[in-house]
Amino acid sequence: MAKDVFDGLPYKLFLEEAEMPKAWYNLRADMKNKPAPLLNPATGKPATFEELASVFCDEGARQELDETTPWIAIPQPIRDFYRVYRPSPLIHAEFLEKLLGTPAKIFYKFEGSNTSGSHKLNSAAAQAYFAKQQGLKGVTTETGAGQWGTALAMACAFFGLDCQVYMVKVSYEQKPFRREVMHTYGAKVTASPSETTEVGRKILAEFPGTGGSLGCAISEAVEAARAQDGYRYVLGSVLNQVMLHQSIIGLETKSALDKYGIKPDIIIGCAGGGSNLGGLIAPFAGEKIRGEADYRLVAVEPASCPSLTRGKFAYDYCDTGKICPLAKMYTLGSGFMPAATHAGGLRYHGMSPVLSQLYHDGLMEACTVKQTEVFAAARDFARVEGILPAPESSHAIKAAIDEALKCKETGEEKVIVFGLTGTGYFDMKAYERFNKGEMEDHPLSDSDLEKSLSMLPQIG
Amino acid sequence: MAKDVFDGLPYKLFLEEAEMPKAWYNLRADMKNKPAPLLNPATGKPATFEELASVFCDEGARQELDETTPWIAIPQPIRDFYRVYRPSPLIHAEFLEKLLGTPAKIFYKFEGSNTSGSHKLNSAAAQAYFAKQQGLKGVTTETGAGQWGTALAMACAFFGLDCQVYMVKVSYEQKPFRREVMHTYGAKVTASPSETTEVGRKILAEFPGTGGSLGCAISEAVEAARAQDGYRYVLGSVLNQVMLHQSIIGLETKSALDKYGIKPDIIIGCAGGGSNLGGLIAPFAGEKIRGEADYRLVAVEPASCPSLTRGKFAYDYCDTGKICPLAKMYTLGSGFMPAATHAGGLRYHGMSPVLSQLYHDGLMEACTVKQTEVFAAARDFARVEGILPAPESSHAIKAAIDEALKCKETGEEKVIVFGLTGTGYFDMKAYERFNKGEMEDHPLSDSDLEKSLSMLPQIG
Repeated sequence: MAKDVFDGLPYKLFLEEAEMPKAWYNLRADMKNKPAPLLNPATGKPATFEELASVFCDEGARQELDETTPWIAIPQPIRDFYRVYRPSPLIHAEFLEKLLGTPAKIFYKFEGSNTSGSHKLNSAAAQAYFAKQQGLKGVTTETGAGQWGTALAMACAFFGLDCQVYMVKVSYEQKPFRREVMHTYGAKVTASPSETTEVGRKILAEFPGTGGSLGCAISEAVEAARAQDGYRYVLGSVLNQVMLHQSIIGLETKSALDKYGIKPDIIIGCAGGGSNLGGLIAPFAGEKIRGEADYRLVAVEPASCPSLTRGKFAYDYCDTGKICPLAKMYTLGSGFMPAATHAGGLRYHGMSPVLSQLYHDGLMEACTVKQTEVFAAARDFARVEGILPAPESSHAIKAAIDEALKCKETGEEKVIVFGLTGTGYFDMKAYERFNKGEMEDHPLSDSDLEKSLSMLPQIG
Repeated sequence: MAKDVFDGLPYKLFLEEAEMPKAWYNLRADMKNKPAPLLNPATGKPATFEELASVFCDEGARQELDETTPWIAIPQPIRDFYRVYRPSPLIHAEFLEKLLGTPAKIFYKFEGSNTSGSHKLNSAAAQAYFAKQQGLKGVTTETGAGQWGTALAMACAFFGLDCQVYMVKVSYEQKPFRREVMHTYGAKVTASPSETTEVGRKILAEFPGTGGSLGCAISEAVEAARAQDGYRYVLGSVLNQVMLHQSIIGLETKSALDKYGIKPDIIIGCAGGGSNLGGLIAPFAGEKIRGEADYRLVAVEPASCPSLTRGKFAYDYCDTGKICPLAKMYTLGSGFMPAATHAGGLRYHGMSPVLSQLYHDGLMEACTVKQTEVFAAARDFARVEGILPAPESSHAIKAAIDEALKCKETGEEKVIVFGLTGTGYFDMKAYERFNKGEMEDHPLSDSDLEKSLSMLPQIG
């Protein structure tokens, strides 16, 4: 690339509001091997629109099944909401480059400049709007660390919709500030498992002292949606519709790079359920599939929860309660119990079917990083780039630094783009452990993996 | 104003990096009545450069005394740091306008898009750079709620300077997350009062169980700076040099408004020590003084700590330890003990000498608002504008809403601009009290005020 592309580049490659995407990009339309269909757990057959629409909003169910329409217009009210916190900046990490002494050019797409503190708001806004438009009274959901719940509470406050969040009990108690942000936005937050649902009461009877789990909270949220007229359940990751909404991240990234004449070589994102990474790489993966350009697309996983790198590509349940549709994905098994690491958003047993298919077809790579090296990267990044990153996002930072240091060895001036999904303001307990030298790594052991994978359902 | 100015206006009136100010504006150069000089507490005479330079950095001492140079160039390394988080957006509060049903046009300058979460970073960056440039090893400071300490820690990490923060003990214990942000940026944080200074040991001997105070933390920080070779003390508000650095807020605001052809009628900011308000209104006050334009400039104070509206314009100590220079300002008395409200940044007994003089000369107004109505305004604002505001900033929101509702009554389409100094992510305990209906107001009683003012020094 011509060197002068980088001369006089602003620190933030901002887009004007008028340059914001007006449609989401549906990568599935361009995929040669489509992701396998979701299966109804009761019938074992592909879930129909009617079945999906009994759980999700109608428009969400339609988007879930749509694998042919490449561009789906973003309704004006959602674009209005996006204007509140978007376009998000694509930042030229010049101070990180200087710290590393690398010839590589590093850029990051920062999705943390909103109160929810992460990219989750992109899909929350869409799902809340579609629920409102359908005339629903409210939505239910689960949240672990709280980013998704906060994002949904914000979106529901904006569109005037009731919001009921089942928050994993251990987080409810340990993250009271997240809970209070949701309260401030008017959401009802219930510690899960709770006495408000049948599944909650059953689990409490069986395990009276349990701190809860994401799987249980999902089951409670789905049950609560079904029990109330005018309510539906919404989910913040994994699903095809979520990938679709998150494509705005990649579309903005590509527009900003194109505007300045920059072509990336490597695009990196952290991967839990896949919502951020799937959105970031979508337009680039599309070009790659259509043979218009080539990029290295890299998923970064925690060594403690390595679904792509060590999981199995198979049909599995999305929740431990086994009431949601089954998905074909890289999975560690729906019974997998991840270690108590601090990147709550990356502790999911499976990976989005879209990303799983891309990985399976060799269109995307994956790597793992360890918790302590992730926090060291986060600290170094914060000190020069200012932003205090979320533990999840810091997985991408670590991988980007490693690639930049490889360039330092080889002298290559590669262009590295990574997704900085959010801020770590509500993760200071984790930073405290790291600052005090008390943090540990929890790489997944072979025996734990084997045990978990042995419980996969025998389908397909 | 022509209506079409507001048609098709973007939500964020962003400036390009190239449009960022290259010099700070020194309002004192245009003031007809200059603020009274700082007095040396030992001699009772105006503090000289040498005396100030024994406490502050040389450049800071120079700026403190400069009341003739209207424009002071911002050194390139500080401008580089500003690029990390500036220009800050001037946001058209269209969703708040809609909620209120007001014909008024409301804009807010948002200074919270950085990890310190407030405007404090503008002066921290400058002071850290000047200390580094002078060849100093490090700086000391005090912090109450933690915004200033966090900002200084960030700036010191960026410029490679040691940072020692004396944090009021009660905050150190109640705000562990703020403390950990500072640790992550490499700062040394000491709970004050501490055993590390003479003044700290003395206070601990006298009041063994004390939770500390800002006044005591200032005294410890000044003593610590004096006790170490190559260290100076830095302060985040009140001082003339701080007002100067913060003028970047007002300069950017004015540039953005000018760019879109918008002329404000009312400019509103919360006022504690005055750093944000002084910076926001500086260029507008300059025009007003020079007779080029007229604006209503409004300081908003908490009813619990009303230095402008109920204090006395007199020389007073800036710290309870009485070791810092005396300033002529509106003050409640350096022995004033503010109620335990949640807007820690507005609990200072005095007001910047620059703002005090403007108020005394009738160039600026002031009003007070109560804590519970401030949090109600904050909640309403958060739900439509997305941003969860700091309690301090929310004082300005409340006053702006009141002005907008007056316009609704009169039908006037006034342009209201207010400063949104920061985010409330570290103030969720306060929001929790509000959400639970447990928050109280603490308006200052006449008897407490009388008692506090009776202890003012008899000078000038």
